[in-house]
Amino acid sequence: MASPKSFNRPCMTFLTDFGTRDTYVGQMKGVALGIHPELQIVDLTHEIPPQQILRAAWVWSDAIAAFPLDTIHVAVVDPGVGSERRLIAAEIGDRKFVCPDNGLLSVILQREVVRRAVTLDNSAWWRTSISNTFHGRDILAPVAAAWSLGHDLLEFGSVLGNPPVTLPSAIVSRSQNSLIGQIIDIDKFGNLISNLDPHELPVAPASVRTEIGAIRVEGVSRCYADVSVGEPIVLAGSSGRLEVAIRDGNAADELQVDCGRRIVVRWGVTQR
Amino acid sequence: MASPKSFNRPCMTFLTDFGTRDTYVGQMKGVALGIHPELQIVDLTHEIPPQQILRAAWVWSDAIAAFPLDTIHVAVVDPGVGSERRLIAAEIGDRKFVCPDNGLLSVILQREVVRRAVTLDNSAWWRTSISNTFHGRDILAPVAAAWSLGHDLLEFGSVLGNPPVTLPSAIVSRSQNSLIGQIIDIDKFGNLISNLDPHELPVAPASVRTEIGAIRVEGVSRCYADVSVGEPIVLAGSSGRLEVAIRDGNAADELQVDCGRRIVVRWGVTQR
Amino acid sequence: MASPKSFNRPCMTFLTDFGTRDTYVGQMKGVALGIHPELQIVDLTHEIPPQQILRAAWVWSDAIAAFPLDTIHVAVVDPGVGSERRLIAAEIGDRKFVCPDNGLLSVILQREVVRRAVTLDNSAWWRTSISNTFHGRDILAPVAAAWSLGHDLLEFGSVLGNPPVTLPSAIVSRSQNSLIGQIIDIDKFGNLISNLDPHELPVAPASVRTEIGAIRVEGVSRCYADVSVGEPIVLAGSSGRLEVAIRDGNAADELQVDCGRRIVVRWGVTQR
Repeated sequence: MASPKSFNRPCMTFLTDFGTRDTYVGQMKGVALGIHPELQIVDLTHEIPPQQILRAAWVWSDAIAAFPLDTIHVAVVDPGVGSERRLIAAEIGDRKFVCPDNGLLSVILQREVVRRAVTLDNSAWWRTSISNTFHGRDILAPVAAAWSLGHDLLEFGSVLGNPPVTLPSAIVSRSQNSLIGQIIDIDKFGNLISNLDPHELPVAPASVRTEIGAIRVEGVSRCYADVSVGEPIVLAGSSGRLEVAIRDGNAADELQVDCGRRIVVRWGVTQR
Repeated sequence: MASPKSFNRPCMTFLTDFGTRDTYVGQMKGVALGIHPELQIVDLTHEIPPQQILRAAWVWSDAIAAFPLDTIHVAVVDPGVGSERRLIAAEIGDRKFVCPDNGLLSVILQREVVRRAVTLDNSAWWRTSISNTFHGRDILAPVAAAWSLGHDLLEFGSVLGNPPVTLPSAIVSRSQNSLIGQIIDIDKFGNLISNLDPHELPVAPASVRTEIGAIRVEGVSRCYADVSVGEPIVLAGSSGRLEVAIRDGNAADELQVDCGRRIVVRWGVTQR
Repeated sequence: MASPKSFNRPCMTFLTDFGTRDTYVGQMKGVALGIHPELQIVDLTHEIPPQQILRAAWVWSDAIAAFPLDTIHVAVVDPGVGSERRLIAAEIGDRKFVCPDNGLLSVILQREVVRRAVTLDNSAWWRTSISNTFHGRDILAPVAAAWSLGHDLLEFGSVLGNPPVTLPSAIVSRSQNSLIGQIIDIDKFGNLISNLDPHELPVAPASVRTEIGAIRVEGVSRCYADVSVGEPIVLAGSSGRLEVAIRDGNAADELQVDCGRRIVVRWGVTQR
């Protein structure tokens, strides 16, 4: 085993569907800090709806850009815990990930390529006593902590023979004057977050129309304050994606739109 | 740019209305830690009701006294994000603050004076790519992190020409034998937190009567255990303010009192 | 006062019924970090139902094993705050605890013995200004932080004359072919967590039957994936205790089982 390089205070992030009511997240942190006491552990969120892997994949992909490159990102949304699904650690683009291989990397892999990846099959790095239902604490946390100490990825297991699992995620279809996508998340403010990239809109914002079912919003705004209180608005949101919001209101409730709804953006259209 | 002084492990606090369901808070921490990896970041709360600036101002003012003086306190309750409202950093009394200039400092400024304050108009300190809807991550977090490294406040922008915005906050009116104020917050236990200072009660607690609408509570107690289970009680609460509680119960629910309700404390009254 | 030994970055955990809506937890962290800036503070949970000491005692006991031995564990579920109940610090087994002496240690004391314990009656370690309703911030946090700096336990107060309070906790009764216990917690996934230890099941899992009221589940499984979606399952859960779950479902809701319900596990039974 190579002597580990030392980092100063590396970041590690956790994203789970565990909630904060139970002590599961705390226990993962305890295990990681027992191995690397200098870690800066940051919670991304623990409120992924139970077992919604694809939702987690979108949220994870949007959050990681804010972190230093040597951060180790750990996600645990794992309905198959204890079954034969693999646990993996991977370098993808310039970043590092540890998670069950069940599709959590689907959206990240749309943008970046896997540089190196291993199955976590070297049990020397695991906790001594392994629960069949909590691999996040017993396998993922100790491996991630050891990785943060500077151990090489290949120490943790065998090189992956086939690529990580990807799930069919929300597709964007493009024509000359439209983009068709989906609402992929609703944030705490009720903002409807789509999978559409505002940079793909090729024309002056004013001539753009956004449609979700019978709802129509004209134009693309710069910030919430561009419209009056209670009015709907389309803008490039905090996630870097196109969002539909209601100023000082809750778009999901007031427009009655759920995750998964189709969103169409057209331009060069004549106003009816 | 001056070479920064070094601190050991400075504290930074975050208070927002972002909730913990989304990754917004995590992203702010990622940006700050990328600039200053040694930070001790503490969450005050992220459950300010959306865009309730004045509520946030009360909560913020009550929480900061528990922290070391060199802590940098960051608040993001920012309905005007992307509009022309200023972002500011300020030394007020012995403490340091970073926030939108929309009234968040209203209550702190009732007690302390501004020593120095700047508008954050030096974009050299901002994240390279600025979202129009997430200045907390893109401007406030990186400026606060750089400040914690020891850079001088004046490096971050122009000296403020006019004082920070203050909102008309809940007023206390005083007579010879009464204080009249407001319920300004309801905590998780349902305790009704007023804006009245227990130190202004000049007489023996036993002769004091508290009124909220038709509700009357005689005397001021020392702790919850002073009354029987289920009984209402008035005492100096954890916030340092006068509170109305029900022992082992939820005063807000059982007494049906909301934020904003008038509270009157009288003394020297004859018991009816 | 002895000169404190220095530790590198000791862990401290907090378990409370404060919730995260208010800033109470943040204030406790501020006080602790003001005394020991290097602390790694980990939240176990702040969502213990208000004042449910026994629930907290179970949760606390299950969570601590994941942490390094020199971690200081602080619990604040304290309906008697300000009354004559004692505050204590104790070394129990190989671990360190700080809490009100109201039964919070009940479950931990079923497994481990008190090595040393003191009443926190040396006010030299307290915050200067003591609230009657927030001893977590004003007494427990500063004492725990000073302890983490290496001060000796005996500096904080008088040796305990009588043992810590223990509450009658959920009892397990054993016969030759059964275990009878209770549901002691329901986790965020709706899994029903019992106080039964899977290691006490002496026979082949297949011949075991679990009963809660009219509900019957045959066998003990290894992981959720062992049964079909929607099916009930009994297994050794993340807590190390016997749990009843529904794969990809919510057992508490679907089976209508609350905390406190009796659970019976029988083996060597003839299937009806």
